[in-house]
Amino acid sequence: MAAATQTFFRSRWVKPPRDVEQLDPAQLAPGFRAAGVACGLKGGGATDVGVLSCDAPETRSALALTRNAAAAAPVRVCRDECDGNSLKAVAVNSGNANAATGEQGYRDALAMRDAAAEALGVEPRNVAVAETGTIGVALDIHAVTTGVREAAQGLSAEGGADFATAIMTTDSGPKRCTVRAGGVTISAQAKGAGMIEPGFATMLCFVQTDAEVEDPEAALRTALAGSMERITVDGQMSTNDTVVLQASGAARAPLPDGLLEAVLLQLALEIVADGEGATRVGRVEVIGAADQDEADRVARAIANSPLVKTALFGRDSNWGRIAQAAGMALAGEELDELGPDRIQAAELAAELPEAELSVNLGRGKARAHVYFSDLTHDYIRINAEYTT
Amino acid sequence: MAAATQTFFRSRWVKPPRDVEQLDPAQLAPGFRAAGVACGLKGGGATDVGVLSCDAPETRSALALTRNAAAAAPVRVCRDECDGNSLKAVAVNSGNANAATGEQGYRDALAMRDAAAEALGVEPRNVAVAETGTIGVALDIHAVTTGVREAAQGLSAEGGADFATAIMTTDSGPKRCTVRAGGVTISAQAKGAGMIEPGFATMLCFVQTDAEVEDPEAALRTALAGSMERITVDGQMSTNDTVVLQASGAARAPLPDGLLEAVLLQLALEIVADGEGATRVGRVEVIGAADQDEADRVARAIANSPLVKTALFGRDSNWGRIAQAAGMALAGEELDELGPDRIQAAELAAELPEAELSVNLGRGKARAHVYFSDLTHDYIRINAEYTT
Repeated sequence: MAAATQTFFRSRWVKPPRDVEQLDPAQLAPGFRAAGVACGLKGGGATDVGVLSCDAPETRSALALTRNAAAAAPVRVCRDECDGNSLKAVAVNSGNANAATGEQGYRDALAMRDAAAEALGVEPRNVAVAETGTIGVALDIHAVTTGVREAAQGLSAEGGADFATAIMTTDSGPKRCTVRAGGVTISAQAKGAGMIEPGFATMLCFVQTDAEVEDPEAALRTALAGSMERITVDGQMSTNDTVVLQASGAARAPLPDGLLEAVLLQLALEIVADGEGATRVGRVEVIGAADQDEADRVARAIANSPLVKTALFGRDSNWGRIAQAAGMALAGEELDELGPDRIQAAELAAELPEAELSVNLGRGKARAHVYFSDLTHDYIRINAEYTT
Repeated sequence: MAAATQTFFRSRWVKPPRDVEQLDPAQLAPGFRAAGVACGLKGGGATDVGVLSCDAPETRSALALTRNAAAAAPVRVCRDECDGNSLKAVAVNSGNANAATGEQGYRDALAMRDAAAEALGVEPRNVAVAETGTIGVALDIHAVTTGVREAAQGLSAEGGADFATAIMTTDSGPKRCTVRAGGVTISAQAKGAGMIEPGFATMLCFVQTDAEVEDPEAALRTALAGSMERITVDGQMSTNDTVVLQASGAARAPLPDGLLEAVLLQLALEIVADGEGATRVGRVEVIGAADQDEADRVARAIANSPLVKTALFGRDSNWGRIAQAAGMALAGEELDELGPDRIQAAELAAELPEAELSVNLGRGKARAHVYFSDLTHDYIRINAEYTT
């Protein structure tokens, strides 16, 4: 089973528990069904509506949403009108973000949710909606509700792969997995790579398990803190980010320690690696910080520095850029000189697609790390040359 | 004289006082002399050491330094060993930043300062030093002190242009001016464009005047707040930024209101326009913010967003990217939807080299603006393909 594990957990930075078995990613965790259909938003027959549902009576769930103050309509609907702790189903469209669409957009997100609830025979408050795609464009709600009904009628236990494909925007491929360990199964689907229109790196992620999860909110919060919240492509927080965890409890066994975080981290790293124009992924670890907030602030300053990101692209082991970014994050404070004795940057220049960097601030014992993509010609091309 | 004014004040965003006369930029404000020489750090005969001195007995001055915690040796020498209020002279090298060079670097910066003081016959504490260029490389202090002595012997009242050229790194040309208004003269020299090695957008700026300036620190602080502190190329704070204002008082007249800020803003805009790979300059104004800090934070988030910067490059009037960046800066707060009724982004797509954007947050009465460059293929090329 170790070999199977390695097939999905491809990064050296992911530390899954032992004896994880990889299943066909089309297969969902027991008790869940999904489908993906084409409603016409994307055109060309591409699937753009996904529905995922849990049949178990006692589903527990947790929901994490973007904190962006310009949140899209579906995020506001989830925040204000859903019961995040008992979500039975999710409905997603990947053709239109339904962001900056005013009151009509909010009504459309509600209509999409209600169509899914009615087709599935569940309460509207038990359905989450997520949308991603163009912003500032009125949603063709008739097409979406028609798609939602069609998907709801086509749900199957083998629909994980179709669902994962239906939620993609500019992703180079679907991001999904189904793994089994400790008598329970987790299936997960994510999307995120940045969008050509309008350029947001919207991240959506859906996780299903038949494990018993006492406190899904705490479990999700902990796992996200070590995965999706530690990545950056371009430092930009999307208006539409949404993560849903659903646990049916049918397996009558708990989640093995670290499995949820390992799954989310692998998917998070795939999002970074598939970032707009990205060719490499970096991991910067800050040690010796005075406190946790400082460690985090310095790590993010380094990960978001365009100078560090272009050095990662250009395979330039330029430790000075790391010193400068760290110094900027600590502006006005006392700092021992950051030279090559304190900064490990050699892997910037290595052939490996993953580069590990570190800096020792020498100010205390706190540490933090962030994963980030490089900044390349293709990032400029994608974001400057495709116009809305 | 209005015509002469326009020759130097080229941006529509600079509002100089009336009747400003432009003089030959080689000409310094009365009482000041300068020179630029080649000491060999850059090679190829390029000038790389500049010295500037004031002959007046009662020079008053002010000094502004980077707050980067990884500040370079010359910045620390200026901070710890100079009397910023009575600077007679400045000595600059543009071949080596003398940053991350340890205790030897600090001794070298002191030696450079002392060589200038001795050659000019002034107290060491009345000399400021500034350095820019490669970092993490030991300074050839013998070459620098030789250059400083040579420059000190070649000072002339017509040395402004030579001095401005000697402080350049990757600047596409010297940034300098000499203007006269209200019976006083201001001459100024600046550099800043980003450096190929190692990529910092170090900004140096020297300003001389024969005006009587009661409180040079306050005058400089106010002028910088409206100019150099409102620009960003890539959101990166250099280890070496230094601004020196010297006022001889010989003209026995005060500075006309707004003249210092207009000079610094024009030079600041030239730095932005000459930013690494830059082709256009944007100005974003945030209005309707709850308070000054919020206005500033949102304006900087928009100006530093790679999505907004690539839209400026790609001439894409993508208001959604402005909404997203503003929403990110206000994460977790209440915000009315930011649509085209609140965001002016049309000039992103205009042919003009300068684009003016605005966003109304509708939360209060505070406002702030920031000037920024676009993000282009050449930024990536410069920072990724030239390795240290």
